[in-house]
Amino acid sequence: MGSHSHSRRRWFLTSGIGVAGLVMGAVRSLRGQTAAPTAPPRDTLAYGQPSPFDNTIRKAPGQGTAITDTALMTPLQDLDGIITPSGLHFLMDHVKGIPDLDPKKHRLLLHGMVDRPLEFTLDELKRLPSVSRVYFLECNANSRPLHGPNGESVQLVHGRTSCSEWTGVLLSVLLKECGVKSGASWIVAEGDESNKYTMSIPLGKAMEDTLVAYAQNGEPVRPHQGYPLRLVVPGWEAIRAVKWLTRINVVDRPYMAWHESGNNADTRPDGKGLWYRFELGPKSVITRPSGGQRLPGHGFYEITGLAWTGRGAVRRVDVSTDGGRTYKEAELQQPVLRYAHTRFRYAWKWNGEETVLQSRCTDERGEVQPTILEAAKNLGVTPDYFYEADHFNGIQPWKVNPDGRIQNALF
Amino acid sequence: MGSHSHSRRRWFLTSGIGVAGLVMGAVRSLRGQTAAPTAPPRDTLAYGQPSPFDNTIRKAPGQGTAITDTALMTPLQDLDGIITPSGLHFLMDHVKGIPDLDPKKHRLLLHGMVDRPLEFTLDELKRLPSVSRVYFLECNANSRPLHGPNGESVQLVHGRTSCSEWTGVLLSVLLKECGVKSGASWIVAEGDESNKYTMSIPLGKAMEDTLVAYAQNGEPVRPHQGYPLRLVVPGWEAIRAVKWLTRINVVDRPYMAWHESGNNADTRPDGKGLWYRFELGPKSVITRPSGGQRLPGHGFYEITGLAWTGRGAVRRVDVSTDGGRTYKEAELQQPVLRYAHTRFRYAWKWNGEETVLQSRCTDERGEVQPTILEAAKNLGVTPDYFYEADHFNGIQPWKVNPDGRIQNALF
Repeated sequence: MGSHSHSRRRWFLTSGIGVAGLVMGAVRSLRGQTAAPTAPPRDTLAYGQPSPFDNTIRKAPGQGTAITDTALMTPLQDLDGIITPSGLHFLMDHVKGIPDLDPKKHRLLLHGMVDRPLEFTLDELKRLPSVSRVYFLECNANSRPLHGPNGESVQLVHGRTSCSEWTGVLLSVLLKECGVKSGASWIVAEGDESNKYTMSIPLGKAMEDTLVAYAQNGEPVRPHQGYPLRLVVPGWEAIRAVKWLTRINVVDRPYMAWHESGNNADTRPDGKGLWYRFELGPKSVITRPSGGQRLPGHGFYEITGLAWTGRGAVRRVDVSTDGGRTYKEAELQQPVLRYAHTRFRYAWKWNGEETVLQSRCTDERGEVQPTILEAAKNLGVTPDYFYEADHFNGIQPWKVNPDGRIQNALF
Repeated sequence: MGSHSHSRRRWFLTSGIGVAGLVMGAVRSLRGQTAAPTAPPRDTLAYGQPSPFDNTIRKAPGQGTAITDTALMTPLQDLDGIITPSGLHFLMDHVKGIPDLDPKKHRLLLHGMVDRPLEFTLDELKRLPSVSRVYFLECNANSRPLHGPNGESVQLVHGRTSCSEWTGVLLSVLLKECGVKSGASWIVAEGDESNKYTMSIPLGKAMEDTLVAYAQNGEPVRPHQGYPLRLVVPGWEAIRAVKWLTRINVVDRPYMAWHESGNNADTRPDGKGLWYRFELGPKSVITRPSGGQRLPGHGFYEITGLAWTGRGAVRRVDVSTDGGRTYKEAELQQPVLRYAHTRFRYAWKWNGEETVLQSRCTDERGEVQPTILEAAKNLGVTPDYFYEADHFNGIQPWKVNPDGRIQNALF
């Protein structure tokens, strides 16, 4: 851990400022957060709401529009640009109900293999050097090529991904303050939930770009997204992005805690488990037109969708309007940001005949999004089995029927 | 207008696709917008809300936390990054109540000096080539150096600016479809309000980058921001950004309509009116720490704030922690986007003594944000008068008292 100690010292030197005096002092809020847990709903002037004419909402799988508190999908077909409104960010919770955390009482503890265990209040974290970065999150279980009603729309198949401007403190800043001991190689992050949701993350990623986020799209992180603190691990499966973050244990091995073994481990057809697979592959999906929509007639349409990759930046997206026989390059919304959703657009004139629309992402490493069958092969699963595959990034084909109806071409 | 006709033809040629067939056809929605004007409030699963512990809200000037329906300021002191959540976007309405527009019935008419007047439904607009761009809006009346309670906080003095990712169709695409006639030089844009809010905009800006926006931060534009359509005129005073947009009249002169003459014209001390002044100058303000906040003690703080300019991109921001005697360059959040808020950050160690914090923006043209007195002079107003000045972009000083209280140093 010599290198970490060195970079910690370098950080003090380059900033010319030590923050060590901060963490022990009493800190009053610099923010507009006051304890008002029983506050009535805000009026729409204090805090604006969508038009009552607009019905852009999250939906739960397995039902038409019903809502559960465990899985809610982002309405990708109704959204534009790359920012997901925080109220429409997907969620996939593994416990009934969410913690109701008072930010005045909440603490983040860093301990384990460190020189100085440290505990931070929210106000203390907010005094530290911050960064804001636009990052997507995607659930490891997103995009399984589902049959039945759950396969009908882009929302229900692919809606477990969203993208926000996250603000917070780099975890490396906090770890350097603690002084990581030689021999440490992993961290274990824990959320303040009733089931002590816990995830292992290699120390390298923790020191590189992992963020302790207190704000999402400008304002405090929403309750369902981990208020008041969430760990954001760019490019990695969202189960690593621990919500209601309260503890970082610096350790020398992964813990294989329940949510990363029994519940979320990848199992192969032979019954054996896969080792950790954090990084998400190159991926894209056409969001309009998409399953369940209907083209009113032949003529001009803009095809649009989202692309992303756990490897950094999207380099290009190609669109096929003939079921994959030929592809042409789509336009990418600028600027293209690393570990962020990338909006693509493609001008298309529909001649009224049956066809299939699909998109293909190539990322900065040159890796190309696979077809459905290639993806199954890459994941070591058979087509019969891949409805339970994780990290599924196969190309999604949307069939256009002569009457304009769009449907999932996979069934 | 030969050049406009030529570029219209070029557009068809380069796209290889005509959209003319589109505008007359019946169009069914491709979006999640269904008419539900009497829908009950969404539950927080279908559409998430902030934590009840969090009190980040818009506020009206002239009162503590009370709300009116005419002026609501963005809580800049509580926000991070560059995206303003849509529910916290400032508003400054010039009529009581807002129109309750059904998107199925709403139309945008382009007429006047054009070859073909055209009327578009929302669904038709959404089939056309779209763009998403992060743009700030700022009210012409923002940042008047106010005395009294309205001068106490960054929210009440400077909170008439916000920044969103806007998506829509470039107005140039629509104007090229209509075919602008030779001799046309302005457009007049009208909102569907009871008072027919109307604004003149030179044709050059209309053809350059003016946007007919239907989405804000991913989702449909909020009612108070102009649902379902808003004109966004990047870098120009927000009174030009006509909400509830319903009509574009192509004309050969500015109209000097009521809201741009009697109500919002700039008057000089000699009583004469200024000619149009659209573009906003280079500007910045420290949002934390800022008026009304309190530092809990000496030590490390991150100073942060926002900078913007109507001239394009912010080139640099300098921060002074000694009342303007010396300045040092702040770090700018990347990427810096043209016509967008730019977040700056500056590491500071407070020694516990009285001082004054302020920031200064330099934009891509090399123009430097003026001091309060320079700004007054630039605007041709005297200090006694500048409480009514528009486009005020003077440097805001925040005084730090030895007890940590921050106050507006102007009084």
